[in-house]
Formats: sequence, C-alpha cells, structure tokens
Amino acid sequence: MKGGLVSESGTVLLSERRHTPRSEGPEAVVSAIRDFIGHLATSGDGAPAGVGLAVPGLVSEDTAIYAANLGWRDVPAKDFTGLDAPIMLGHDVRTGGLAENVLGAGRGVADFLFLPIGTGIAGAMIVNGEPYGGTSGWGGEIGHIPVFPDGEQCACGQFGCLETYASAASVGRRYSLRAGLEDVRAEQVVTSDDPVAIEIWDEAVEALSLALATYTLLLDPSMIVLGGGLAEAGPALFDPVRTRLVKRLAFRAAPPLLPAALGVDAGMLGAALLGWRAAGRPELGAGWEVEVRSAPLVS
Amino acid sequence: MKGGLVSESGTVLLSERRHTPRSEGPEAVVSAIRDFIGHLATSGDGAPAGVGLAVPGLVSEDTAIYAANLGWRDVPAKDFTGLDAPIMLGHDVRTGGLAENVLGAGRGVADFLFLPIGTGIAGAMIVNGEPYGGTSGWGGEIGHIPVFPDGEQCACGQFGCLETYASAASVGRRYSLRAGLEDVRAEQVVTSDDPVAIEIWDEAVEALSLALATYTLLLDPSMIVLGGGLAEAGPALFDPVRTRLVKRLAFRAAPPLLPAALGVDAGMLGAALLGWRAAGRPELGAGWEVEVRSAPLVS
Repeated sequence: MKGGLVSESGTVLLSERRHTPRSEGPEAVVSAIRDFIGHLATSGDGAPAGVGLAVPGLVSEDTAIYAANLGWRDVPAKDFTGLDAPIMLGHDVRTGGLAENVLGAGRGVADFLFLPIGTGIAGAMIVNGEPYGGTSGWGGEIGHIPVFPDGEQCACGQFGCLETYASAASVGRRYSLRAGLEDVRAEQVVTSDDPVAIEIWDEAVEALSLALATYTLLLDPSMIVLGGGLAEAGPALFDPVRTRLVKRLAFRAAPPLLPAALGVDAGMLGAALLGWRAAGRPELGAGWEVEVRSAPLVS
Repeated sequence: MKGGLVSESGTVLLSERRHTPRSEGPEAVVSAIRDFIGHLATSGDGAPAGVGLAVPGLVSEDTAIYAANLGWRDVPAKDFTGLDAPIMLGHDVRTGGLAENVLGAGRGVADFLFLPIGTGIAGAMIVNGEPYGGTSGWGGEIGHIPVFPDGEQCACGQFGCLETYASAASVGRRYSLRAGLEDVRAEQVVTSDDPVAIEIWDEAVEALSLALATYTLLLDPSMIVLGGGLAEAGPALFDPVRTRLVKRLAFRAAPPLLPAALGVDAGMLGAALLGWRAAGRPELGAGWEVEVRSAPLVS
C-alpha cells in the first residue's frame, strides 16, 4: 500500500510505501492501515485536516462494504484511523479516475473512461463530472465484459472476458503458455518479434478495441484515458488499438485515446482529494499543479 | 407520428396518429409536425401550457441537431410550433425512458436500462435519476455493440451488432432467409417449433443476453426494462434471456428483467413530461396514475 501527505496547494509533502499484510487476515490489514495513517499524520507540519483512503471492492464514503481479496465486510471508515480528522473512503479505481479527472489527462472533462490496465482491468467511468459506480457500486467492470463470447475461461469463472486476454498478467501468462516458456512478462511480449508473441499481442489489442468500441457506443465518452502498466507500452498499444477502434465504429467517430497523466500516483492523489473533501474543502484540486505526463510514456 | 394532449393530472385527453411525410423531405416533416401540434392545441380546453416533442437522432432541448432518416440538420425547436407556448425537445428513446422512469416500470428508480426492442434496438440509460445521452447525445447505442465480433454485417456497416441478431426486424429477416421463405414476422418465429426458427430465436436470445451482461457489468443497473414489439413475446423472451444472463455473470447477481409498463404510449407520455417541464412544471408526473401494464403482455 501507498500513502502520503498532500498539502492544500497540492504539494506532495511525503509519499511512502508499506507492505500489505494480506496473509495475516482482514483485521491485520485494517490495523496496518491505521498505523500507517498515524505515522503519516505525525510526519507533517501539524495534524492533517482530513484523511482519504482508496480501497478495493465495494465501498461507500463511510464503509468498506466488501473486499473479497482482503476478507473485509462492513468495516466502518473510522476503524482505519485513530486520528480526530474526518475520513472519506473511495473505490480504488474510481479514486484514480477522480484524480485523472481533477488533475490529470481528463482535467475538467465531464464524461470519459479512465482504464488502468495492469494485473487486472477495471474502469472508472466519469459521468456528468463525477466517477460513477452504478446502482450498488459494482459498475465499471469492463475487464469482465464478454468480448469473445466463446472464448477462454477467465479466473472469475466467466468466458471470454477482456481481462483474460488483455491485462498485463494475461498477456504474459498466455504467451508463456503458448510458447512453452515460464514467466515471460507482458513488456517482453509487446516488444518481441516472435510470431507467437505477435499473435498474443494481436489478440489483446483486438479484445481491447472490442471493449472500447462497446464502451463508446454505450456511453459516448469524450475521451478514453489508458493507464496502468500496459499503457507504458506507448504507441505499441495506442496505435493498433486506435486503428481498430476506428474500424469497429461505422456510424460514429471514435473518441481520442490518451495516456493517463498521473501514472502510479493517481490513486494517492485521488485519495488526497477525498481527504480534502472530508475536510470540507471539495473545491481543492482543480488549481493544483502536479507533475503530469501528457505524452505516451514510451515512444 | 403520434401526438396527444395530457393534462396537469396526467389524463390523456386526446391521442392521435398522423402519417409522417418522410418522402416529401425534411421541411415537409417539420411542417407536418407544426400543423399536427396546432391541431392538437385547438382540440383542448384552452391553449396548452407547454409542448414536448420526442425526435430521433441527435437532439438538445432546443434543437433537433441531426436526424439521418429525416434529413434534419439544426432545426430550432420553435420551427416545430406556431404556438406561443414554450417547447422542449427530447431524444425519442430517452423520452420513452423518461416516461418509464417517472410513470412506468422504473418509477422512482435512479439507475436502470430501458430497452425497447422493435424494428431496431436502442437503449435509454437512466443514470442518477435522469436519461443519460453521453457527452454528445450519441449514447445508448446498445443495438450496435459487437456481441459476436466475427458475426454478420449489420446495416450500419459494423459486424456482429446486437440489432442484426435480435431486433424484431432481424429475427423475421434472418428466419425468412434461412428457411427460404418470404416476409415471416418475428412473432411467428418466436412461437414456431420449426428447428430453423428455434435456431434463429436462440441466436437472438444469446445476442441479447451477451449485451445485457455487458451492460450490467459496466453500468450496474438496478433493473432492466424490456419494451417494444418483441417484449410482447413475454416469457418466450424473458425466461431464456434471464437464464442466460444469470449464467453469463459469475461474480455478481443479474439485475431483474421487467417488462415495460407503458407500451406504445411511453414516447407520448415522455413528451408530455417534457411539455410540462417546458411550462415550468418539472414536478408533474410522479403523482400521475396512468394505466400501467406491470406483467408480461403475453404469457
């Protein structure tokens, strides 16, 4: 896990990483977060005005309702902090989307998709200027839409999910399996000229362009922001996905595809925005000057 | 086209149909609408307080921006009426969705999909309590998402679109073609025990369940309301689509599938709501008691 201190003017005063003790159970993780927040709070120039926390799974502003991989069920926000400061929780991917919306590639854009592609794939849908999680908070699961209806089974149990073809983990896994090798990483597959690697990458690109065509036809976003580890592939990802997305759409234009601007800091900056919202300062953020990366990361 | 007079308390005082003179060109249609509205206005108990008009294509509250099948480009709302009353335009499918939201199967439900299945397929996405058309008004094109990526070419030019398998027109056309018959209607295909008919219907149901799984995973609606001519098939549509939707979703529940309540009146009632909004009475509607059909129409 990652945490930091972000000032009123958007300066990242401190940024640290800590091990997440998943194997020690749900309460150990809550307790580790509480300790981490306590440590960060004492590292600044006085007590923090508010705390923002981005967590996986199903989450409301004041409760971590459910997180399968952490074993959480209905953990109240106040359990995560021993401080007096108000706290606001957010969904991990949507909190990153909030940061890209307020500070990053989608700054001031009311309707777009933020799609980080890493070990897994989930999207943050920005709708009418705010991240939208659906009726119960399970929205944005674009990684599990059936792009190839008769396709391979996903770890989730469904068939032909985007994630099982196009996540960084899947690209590495599928290539390793088909080439009879062990633990090849996605970055190596993307840059390889081995025909098997080209085939695996082609399937990932096809899956992504199908999913983005579907998103475009349904939600009519003004842009699509790709982030996460796989977006580091730069033009090797953006160029073929853009070409095929255009080709899939006959009667409407494709929205522009842009690289995310905040990289691995999106989640932490989004959590900082939540912290300032908790502190009654929802107007903060738009004026912050953060170091943004506005061009593809690899060219 | 269809029009009517709807009172402050939701009583449909008058409802009429007129021929749409498409073949006479874009202006003839505008002029026919103006005449129709004028006629309706004089048929009531005094001048109407407002006018609501649902039109196809791309539309804002005050302009019919673009409608391919009518040849419209940037027609101002005031061109549609010679009356003094304020007028508000709406998108045809989303206006039906508004009516289902305020008065019908999704009464008071903040987030759901209204999907009329007729000659074509387009959806009205209700998001945070209002129809959502995306960034430029082209949202909701669920009829053209690629459910079978290597599938048949759609009239729109794309491949494997939902509409080309599952609209009423497509079910009839595909059966007629495969069976070597002429102009068989969808209703006949649905109730037939001819193995070819069963196959065509099965493909329509599969296409629909894939599209609804995709919608559910992305937008997490609290219900899906099916309407239009094909929904008249009742359990022959609802039962297999529900079963397969559940089967397609491994890690989340399927939202309930419900039949639309307002039938062919959804568009007109929605336009009445727009007319009352134009008249400065946005609160009207929720209290109206309209004759709703809350069960499948054919069982």
